[in-house]
Amino acid sequence: MNRIQAVYRVHSDANSIAARARGIAVEQSVEMPTGPIGDAYVLDEIVGRVEDVKDLGSGAYEVRIGLAADTTGFEAGQLANMLFGNTSLQSDAELVDAVFPAEFAQIFGGPNQGMAGLRARVKAKGALTATALKPQGSPPAVLAKLAQDIALGGIDYIKDDHGIADQSYSPFAERVPAVAEAVAKAAAQTGIPTRYLPSLNGNLDAMRKQIALCRKHGLDTVLATPMLAGLSQFHTLKKENPDFAFVAHPSFGGLAMAPSFLFGKLFRLLGADAAIFPNHGGRFGYTPEECRRLARFALEDWPCVKPCIPVPAGGMSLDRIPEMLDFFGRDVMLLIGGSLLSAKDKITGETARFCAAVRGP
Amino acid sequence: MNRIQAVYRVHSDANSIAARARGIAVEQSVEMPTGPIGDAYVLDEIVGRVEDVKDLGSGAYEVRIGLAADTTGFEAGQLANMLFGNTSLQSDAELVDAVFPAEFAQIFGGPNQGMAGLRARVKAKGALTATALKPQGSPPAVLAKLAQDIALGGIDYIKDDHGIADQSYSPFAERVPAVAEAVAKAAAQTGIPTRYLPSLNGNLDAMRKQIALCRKHGLDTVLATPMLAGLSQFHTLKKENPDFAFVAHPSFGGLAMAPSFLFGKLFRLLGADAAIFPNHGGRFGYTPEECRRLARFALEDWPCVKPCIPVPAGGMSLDRIPEMLDFFGRDVMLLIGGSLLSAKDKITGETARFCAAVRGP
Repeated sequence: MNRIQAVYRVHSDANSIAARARGIAVEQSVEMPTGPIGDAYVLDEIVGRVEDVKDLGSGAYEVRIGLAADTTGFEAGQLANMLFGNTSLQSDAELVDAVFPAEFAQIFGGPNQGMAGLRARVKAKGALTATALKPQGSPPAVLAKLAQDIALGGIDYIKDDHGIADQSYSPFAERVPAVAEAVAKAAAQTGIPTRYLPSLNGNLDAMRKQIALCRKHGLDTVLATPMLAGLSQFHTLKKENPDFAFVAHPSFGGLAMAPSFLFGKLFRLLGADAAIFPNHGGRFGYTPEECRRLARFALEDWPCVKPCIPVPAGGMSLDRIPEMLDFFGRDVMLLIGGSLLSAKDKITGETARFCAAVRGP
Repeated sequence: MNRIQAVYRVHSDANSIAARARGIAVEQSVEMPTGPIGDAYVLDEIVGRVEDVKDLGSGAYEVRIGLAADTTGFEAGQLANMLFGNTSLQSDAELVDAVFPAEFAQIFGGPNQGMAGLRARVKAKGALTATALKPQGSPPAVLAKLAQDIALGGIDYIKDDHGIADQSYSPFAERVPAVAEAVAKAAAQTGIPTRYLPSLNGNLDAMRKQIALCRKHGLDTVLATPMLAGLSQFHTLKKENPDFAFVAHPSFGGLAMAPSFLFGKLFRLLGADAAIFPNHGGRFGYTPEECRRLARFALEDWPCVKPCIPVPAGGMSLDRIPEMLDFFGRDVMLLIGGSLLSAKDKITGETARFCAAVRGP
């Protein structure tokens, strides 16, 4: 049977690591002592296998566990359950990677559009630009005006702040048509087909209705929060809407799971066309190495799975653009939010400056 | 406007804590610098407020933030987003509690049945007993036989192992009727109305179908994994099925969120009738204090919200029963899985011993 190679970073002492590795293999498969198991199929095929244990020094070990692919039922939520369900509750172990059997690419499908599709939507070639509509609490007309001012600066993507959902002060059904219309008007002026990305929220029924509303108003790209929606819902929406692109927001993703794996690889497999993550040197404590690894996971060659464009964010500002382009290259979408919004009534010009800095002269 | 009091435990130095507290208040509300915000409503009502900062010693602080209730849209996923969405990505902060406005009890509703309902289902008065069907990989007939043998021992609740989903070797639609019938037969013999809890999995559509199948086969209690399903889905299913009881499994819940808050309070608010958690002294590193706090959150008086019964689990064994009953009292469901299954063909007797130890002579 095909196996997923799940890779955990485990803190342990040398005497305990072998037993601890076996403990993870059991926890993430049959979750019971193997002694009483009499069924040879279960013992040989279903029980997780310790494939490798590598000493990383300083009391850290890299543990590779072979998990039977069939235990996932080939379903997104159950995949997460088998990768890290109970082990997420144990503070000595972090899931840092998983190598999936080749057929997972077809089964889960990855991004609908991927990096090339996101570039094509806005007729861009190099790095992409993005910002967020804020603050929540603003009524639809104010957000629409703000979006229009930003779009007039020629930006590629404008997303709802991930905190903007379906609140009384800005109901989804009123906000989305208003902002969509405002952005479309601006795009007609600039010639740059700026996209507005509403933030999906609520349960699967609600998100389906939201996508239908988006489609009705000419939108084709949305913001999703897979860890809040549940990975199954995210994956379902992606499959049901092959014409849509999905930008993944990391909200609620603070599991003891390596961000590079969760946001760069797992979100990509399930269908994120773009993956937002907190860049190093911002408000969040990710290291440059972890960010580089995330970008690599999102972009590296993966048969039948489109590249997902990395979106470093989280307190970025215009003066960091050269450094970020130097660090990530051109296969990137730069997302600058609060710092752009600080320009207030000069926001169109500031947006234009942002776009020029990314696209070059 | 009513505010949620969200309580974070933050590691910081004395010079930075005031700014860090303001940072969390902004991160969990408008997520942008407040300087450019001109709207008085947003500034006064929507921006999070630092209500209190308490020095806990050793570089730890308790930070209380008032979050506007309206920002949640009164929806489960968005509630989690506002409580801990982005802050979950920051390693210095843990969400340890939240005090909700009184109207949240009506809006979210809490457990359908609660502790009293779970006792009534099995005609029990004191502590409840539970176990898990394992290992995954076993076909429906084997699991049905195992469930029957256990039910003959007179146990209250038998749940699917949380790893048992809808896999080829044990499809939900075959397993659930087979196990339900076997348990019903045994219950007719013992006179104890033992309940079988199938594990819900997949997206919202799939889980709805699974509940319908459960109802068709006379079941009224299920196992859910809210962190995998997405809190919105869990809450939706609870509301749609007021005759059902929902036992919450903590899988994938390893956020930097205090387990007592997540499993004891938030799961309860959204509708968990029983909340499974890893007890201290098992395979997981929770402290006795954290477990006690979780039980308190699950049980404490909460107007309009039924008590949720705490279910300490995770590597428990029969010899710990007296100690667990001493620690948790009788408002508890004891869940013993792998250790019970080790009895193999003596499982009915071992189950009877478990039940007797819990119920007394």
